[in-house]
Amino acid sequence: MKNPLKQFYKDNYITLRETYGVKEAMNDVISKTEDATMIDYLYVVDKKNKLLGVLPLKTLIIARAPRKIKNLMLTKYRFLKEDTPIYQAIDMIQHYDLEMIPIVDKQGIIKGIFTAEDALDLLKEETLEQYRNLAAITEESVNTKAHKKAKSRFPWLAVLMVLSIFTSTTVSLFEKTISAVVVLAYFQTMILAMAGNISTQSLASTVIKTTKEPKAKLAPHLFKEIVIGLINSLTCALVGFIATYAFLYILKYDNTKILSVSFVVSLSLFISLIVGTLTGTFIPAILKKYNVNPSVASGPFMTTINDMLSLFVYLGLATLMLL
Amino acid sequence: MKNPLKQFYKDNYITLRETYGVKEAMNDVISKTEDATMIDYLYVVDKKNKLLGVLPLKTLIIARAPRKIKNLMLTKYRFLKEDTPIYQAIDMIQHYDLEMIPIVDKQGIIKGIFTAEDALDLLKEETLEQYRNLAAITEESVNTKAHKKAKSRFPWLAVLMVLSIFTSTTVSLFEKTISAVVVLAYFQTMILAMAGNISTQSLASTVIKTTKEPKAKLAPHLFKEIVIGLINSLTCALVGFIATYAFLYILKYDNTKILSVSFVVSLSLFISLIVGTLTGTFIPAILKKYNVNPSVASGPFMTTINDMLSLFVYLGLATLMLL
Repeated sequence: MKNPLKQFYKDNYITLRETYGVKEAMNDVISKTEDATMIDYLYVVDKKNKLLGVLPLKTLIIARAPRKIKNLMLTKYRFLKEDTPIYQAIDMIQHYDLEMIPIVDKQGIIKGIFTAEDALDLLKEETLEQYRNLAAITEESVNTKAHKKAKSRFPWLAVLMVLSIFTSTTVSLFEKTISAVVVLAYFQTMILAMAGNISTQSLASTVIKTTKEPKAKLAPHLFKEIVIGLINSLTCALVGFIATYAFLYILKYDNTKILSVSFVVSLSLFISLIVGTLTGTFIPAILKKYNVNPSVASGPFMTTINDMLSLFVYLGLATLMLL
Repeated sequence: MKNPLKQFYKDNYITLRETYGVKEAMNDVISKTEDATMIDYLYVVDKKNKLLGVLPLKTLIIARAPRKIKNLMLTKYRFLKEDTPIYQAIDMIQHYDLEMIPIVDKQGIIKGIFTAEDALDLLKEETLEQYRNLAAITEESVNTKAHKKAKSRFPWLAVLMVLSIFTSTTVSLFEKTISAVVVLAYFQTMILAMAGNISTQSLASTVIKTTKEPKAKLAPHLFKEIVIGLINSLTCALVGFIATYAFLYILKYDNTKILSVSFVVSLSLFISLIVGTLTGTFIPAILKKYNVNPSVASGPFMTTINDMLSLFVYLGLATLMLL
């Protein structure tokens, strides 16, 4: 999606001179039209191919003979510059229900057209790209042999293995704490999973916001996400406290410790969920700012960062409060 | 994406009678054309509005006067039936670079058109929908207050909290094992994360396959995915063995147990990664078969299932082999 619009410099469009009359123009269209030509809109240009206006074919068809093209053409029309980002081109096609938009250079000279079909191809490719990003798998041919595909997918698994050694190291730092309070291991997955889940909600909301309104200011959205995250982190922490207390009570855990362990789980949930909200909100926003596809943030790097932070909070708090 | 094509029954297209001559047809087009009319293709019908052929406007424009429409029209053309799934309509628009496709009922009577812009809107909506599915957030208005958004997002978090109590229960079943071999807690997150990662790779590959070639037979793809999964599960298990061994050696862990713990971690990795491959490959394939968007499978339900299975394998094997 970062390629320039130059790839759309094809010549399957028709230009007309502004001095033409209706009949001359119609004859020109008839002589220039080929199979692949897009004729819904005709582009009116001067001698130097500078775009002066857009003439819908419909207007030409229903126009009466004596009129001149320059009096029929639209002088207010949408166009793309060579450096317009592609996502803006797609938005424009979609938002204004256009079939084709002219692309002009700095001098206003028409260079190509961007069509609804181009937008459709790009958008479908992007959807597939999101899945490839999610799993870091490259575009694979159907005929590639399984062992070659396995080989091409392995490096990413190796990277993730190294990342997970960091989480293992984090846990190992708290060996004494876990040995002393083994029940901590029960709630570890819950805290990590919930931090990941609230992070995914913020991320999805932020990606949708930046996709739907690419030009809107993000500050009010970010602020709102944080308020939402705070409310739900607090609610989840309260529910987590009750759940942990009940869980340990049913397991007949040492009565003198139930309250303190439940409190540690609950406080860790609260802090981890806030951290998850912040990473889920800000990381895609920052990626978007630097024109990186924000869906990259839903990958395992984010998960590892969230996991390590949550483990530090959880086992750190447990060490401080339970030993 | 599951709505029928009926929503596209608009009348912004032009039908012509097969008996017309070129001039009559052109006059008809001129009189019927309005702002929103799609005129790239004209639909040739009989008295009862039964579709007989398609006439590209281009053909009409360059045709000489004495010819009849029925001799100019294309009799081989693409069309949609009322019960054609929308994703097939989108594929057809895209694959054949069409701008509009007629929709006909069982009697062959033209009912509406499906356009490239319709396809674009649906595809963009689907991309956003995938994010909403991922986080189970509903379509939200920009003006909704934060506390209302928090309230609408909370039920999903509550569901996930309940799910994670299942994983906590799984871990708690193995209390004795963890108390006896505390280092098991170090590698728990690694095994869960790696099973999730390989599952995501298979899932992405399967979703891309079903999106790109919705009609292709899946069996060869599924078989290949399993072979790929087997190769990489084995490779990761070997790497995991070496990494665990080195990790415990550096931590100066009890020499007599390093080998057996490393073996348990490695074998658990192998089995969990195969399970992850199977869920990641088959669940989206099954969802697709029942016309459910396969991207639903990337959500937290899948993660919870993978987590619980992996924990059972890991702590179960540890109980059998280390106690």
